[in-house]
Amino acid sequence: MASKTKTQVTLAPRDTKTLKRLNELADVVVTAADRCKDPHVDIPARTLSNVRYNKARRFIEMGRNTNRRQLFNLSQAKSFMQTMLVASGVTQLIEQGKTTSIRGLFYLMKHTIHGTKEETFDNQGESDPVIEDVEVLLNSLREELHLYAKKAGEMVGDITLVDSGDEINCARMGSGGYGIPSIVEPEVIQFKKTSAKFILHVEKDTVWQRFNEDRFWRNNDCILIHGGGQPPRGVRRMLYRLHNELKLPVYCLLDNDPWGYYIYSVIKQGSINLAYESQRMAIPDARFLGLRSIDYERCALSDSVQIALNDIDRKRAKQIANYPWFANKKPWQKEIQKLLDNGFKLEVEALISKDISYVTEEYTPQRLKDGNWLD
Amino acid sequence: MASKTKTQVTLAPRDTKTLKRLNELADVVVTAADRCKDPHVDIPARTLSNVRYNKARRFIEMGRNTNRRQLFNLSQAKSFMQTMLVASGVTQLIEQGKTTSIRGLFYLMKHTIHGTKEETFDNQGESDPVIEDVEVLLNSLREELHLYAKKAGEMVGDITLVDSGDEINCARMGSGGYGIPSIVEPEVIQFKKTSAKFILHVEKDTVWQRFNEDRFWRNNDCILIHGGGQPPRGVRRMLYRLHNELKLPVYCLLDNDPWGYYIYSVIKQGSINLAYESQRMAIPDARFLGLRSIDYERCALSDSVQIALNDIDRKRAKQIANYPWFANKKPWQKEIQKLLDNGFKLEVEALISKDISYVTEEYTPQRLKDGNWLD
Repeated sequence: MASKTKTQVTLAPRDTKTLKRLNELADVVVTAADRCKDPHVDIPARTLSNVRYNKARRFIEMGRNTNRRQLFNLSQAKSFMQTMLVASGVTQLIEQGKTTSIRGLFYLMKHTIHGTKEETFDNQGESDPVIEDVEVLLNSLREELHLYAKKAGEMVGDITLVDSGDEINCARMGSGGYGIPSIVEPEVIQFKKTSAKFILHVEKDTVWQRFNEDRFWRNNDCILIHGGGQPPRGVRRMLYRLHNELKLPVYCLLDNDPWGYYIYSVIKQGSINLAYESQRMAIPDARFLGLRSIDYERCALSDSVQIALNDIDRKRAKQIANYPWFANKKPWQKEIQKLLDNGFKLEVEALISKDISYVTEEYTPQRLKDGNWLD
Repeated sequence: MASKTKTQVTLAPRDTKTLKRLNELADVVVTAADRCKDPHVDIPARTLSNVRYNKARRFIEMGRNTNRRQLFNLSQAKSFMQTMLVASGVTQLIEQGKTTSIRGLFYLMKHTIHGTKEETFDNQGESDPVIEDVEVLLNSLREELHLYAKKAGEMVGDITLVDSGDEINCARMGSGGYGIPSIVEPEVIQFKKTSAKFILHVEKDTVWQRFNEDRFWRNNDCILIHGGGQPPRGVRRMLYRLHNELKLPVYCLLDNDPWGYYIYSVIKQGSINLAYESQRMAIPDARFLGLRSIDYERCALSDSVQIALNDIDRKRAKQIANYPWFANKKPWQKEIQKLLDNGFKLEVEALISKDISYVTEEYTPQRLKDGNWLD
């Protein structure tokens, strides 16, 4: 498995730091072996019961519970081995200055254990959680471990950035846009200059195309981003960096349905499943610009654009209303209750029934001008 | 529904041509009314029985069967009305110089018919086929009707193009890439200069990221594209234009499974469902570079990377082997038979088990050098 193409790689400071943590992890085994002890690691528990909403920091974070994983324990030996394998795989990636997908890492690590018929990993469903374990164990984002997720999402707007040494002017990207990379860490991407006053995040590529075609970002001095539905990590991290480093407010234009609420919730407070990443991804100040349940009346939409709520929608809406970060907010309770009372949901695309460019020329500018959004 | 923002739009020559066809369609109704006749349109039949493989042109095309759609026919009146509605909607788009998604058009056209409780379209499942009807009726690609599909796929490489007036150098796109638009017609995108010798089309964004990180396109003078799985229309049309206008051969690097074969088949011969678009999308000279069923032995891969074929895989593989464009090709029969004999499939990512950059530094360059591909 050794690389035939290994070349001397200059490590970024952050890589050096991550490698140090990986070495400390390896030392656990060496030290235990030296002392003839059973090596173990204590992995922060990624369970719902170990997740809480931090009111002061305003995002979801992990508690302090850990699970011990020991080598000399029949039920834990395999996952101990897998943890070490993943750690060794990402060490290899960092040392070679390369990155791969989580599927790639699965293949990199998968082999039949010598002298047995046992596989190190049977399928990717086994390696993905171990990658998450290693992330929390080392307090390193997946991206710092040189692992990338699926790539999705694009951006345009008056911002010039440097990506892997290439200067990219996002105001000159035509109808196509700049494809947001999976890994947008400062080692890869540096912001150079911008005149944008805010970020507009829209849910879907089709809505993004409408906004881009109407040059909304130019007329309104903003950066326009979509995340292809639930935004992948690269997009969330890009939003986070733009928001925090350039001090740009983030406005979200999503569908008026539980899925839209949920996307907003993840952008704002972090995801429950991956609570450990909130501190470097969550944007507590993100604002929900719409669509709103009041828009059917407010915009005088026709009956024809209503999509009836189904049972799953109703159940999800009630769950979301009970999220601790929405539970105490009257405007959000009102918003979700109104959705349930309406009995229907509304998609951003429905606004086209008013006019092709209603969403870019009336709806969004008016909401921004009025400061009419939910927090 | 009239646009408040209607501005004088300068029509591109192609838009003028499309509008002329739309007007001719409208004239059908006017002329019939003048003569007190029942207006009708004859729509080329988009049925499997009306699709054939044209051996001379080497792609799938439609036959000459048509279906008549009459206004004064109880079972056809609604679809006649829907056809005219779609035609009127795209006329509005072209006249305003705007584009929208097929979902957007659905909302644009959807309304309750005056004096009834009947909706023009109940759901998008009703409007999409009518859009396809209008495409074949007018012999206009959907993109010429100012309609866009989902956007996916990215490109990098030594090519400079102009997109909506912005000059974009795809050799300076960092790790992100240029997001291929939905509509890549010559009115939107013009190729300016390239030193690329060929196009490498890979299946997934994750594989594309590996090739981009290793600067494969620079070291091998090519344009690197992915289509996010089954490539959307924009990507197919981009491949077609690059291939035909710049005379660049297209090599496809796809998984060794029926899905990979199918993606290749659609790029090469067109899709059975949308046979009418083949003449402007199919690339009969596209080459299948791999993965191949012989790669397990040829590349000395480990057992661990095998993924067992399931019943659906076996059934699909046999169907594809019987496609008329594969049926008479011995190398393809051998390829598919070998897949079935292997009993397993292989993903491109599996090559990482040899080395992180094996696919970019050994596998692909060697195949290209040896001229080792399937046609």
